[in-house]
Amino acid sequence: MKSDAELVAELIANSVTIATVESCTGGLIAHRITEVAGSSATFWGSWVTYDNQAKIALGVSADTLKKYGAVSREVATEMARAGWDKVRAAQTAPNSPLIVIATTGIAGPSGGTETKPVGLCWLAVARSPDDIETRRIQAPRELNRSQTKLYFSNAALELPLKRS
Amino acid sequence: MKSDAELVAELIANSVTIATVESCTGGLIAHRITEVAGSSATFWGSWVTYDNQAKIALGVSADTLKKYGAVSREVATEMARAGWDKVRAAQTAPNSPLIVIATTGIAGPSGGTETKPVGLCWLAVARSPDDIETRRIQAPRELNRSQTKLYFSNAALELPLKRS
Repeated sequence: MKSDAELVAELIANSVTIATVESCTGGLIAHRITEVAGSSATFWGSWVTYDNQAKIALGVSADTLKKYGAVSREVATEMARAGWDKVRAAQTAPNSPLIVIATTGIAGPSGGTETKPVGLCWLAVARSPDDIETRRIQAPRELNRSQTKLYFSNAALELPLKRS
Repeated sequence: MKSDAELVAELIANSVTIATVESCTGGLIAHRITEVAGSSATFWGSWVTYDNQAKIALGVSADTLKKYGAVSREVATEMARAGWDKVRAAQTAPNSPLIVIATTGIAGPSGGTETKPVGLCWLAVARSPDDIETRRIQAPRELNRSQTKLYFSNAALELPLKRS
């Protein structure tokens, strides 16, 4: 796995703008990216949409949240899509590649159910409104909350360069 | 200084909703709050407005950015105000206390100037549109980027309960 500094360097070398929409990771991905000096050359920013109303304010459909629940492929997709649209609309030079990563999951220790256990996370990565990949991951149950957030963020940070 | 868990417990006990608008801390404050299990009872979410265009998209005036620079009392105030307004507008039960913390500063190692050196940070805490406190802090110069972000976040997390 690449280090965060290697990831940031590669994003900058490819003129990529990156942003995140984080629920279960709670800002950790943004924090990790901004730990790297010079990351402002690639990092736009983040929405940490922890409360469901924050997800709706960003652009996630209340119907989708109700129908599938916050921790779902559908909501992850809409989070990434909404973030992508907002960044693109606000960019002054909207020609370079734009990648938006979204996370929604259950960091625990409570909040799990039989079908959606603690450690479940849906990731989405949007490269355009029509190109949004999703991935379902499950953190090992022996991890605590902090370790689970880290596990989610590691998986998320592997996505941007998968295809570049 | 209170631990993050003590802060979160106190915010919950006081029915406070908290949100952050972070530039120089890059999501670290949100990350620290969400490390605490149960923080979803008080934490709304965060805008990590790293790029200046992200600040403008949130509601900071382009004129203010140009006139005072991103690292200024005026921009910190507008960040906190814009975040406060956005959360309040989106809340379904907008009666409880709402506190929004904003940070804008220079984490380094580059980006400093004679009048705005590395380690300078403006904090703002909004309790209402008419009640926004600001504070100028200067991190010790011997701190590295990561330590400087942590120093900023420590100072920011002291603010919410100052008057409660």
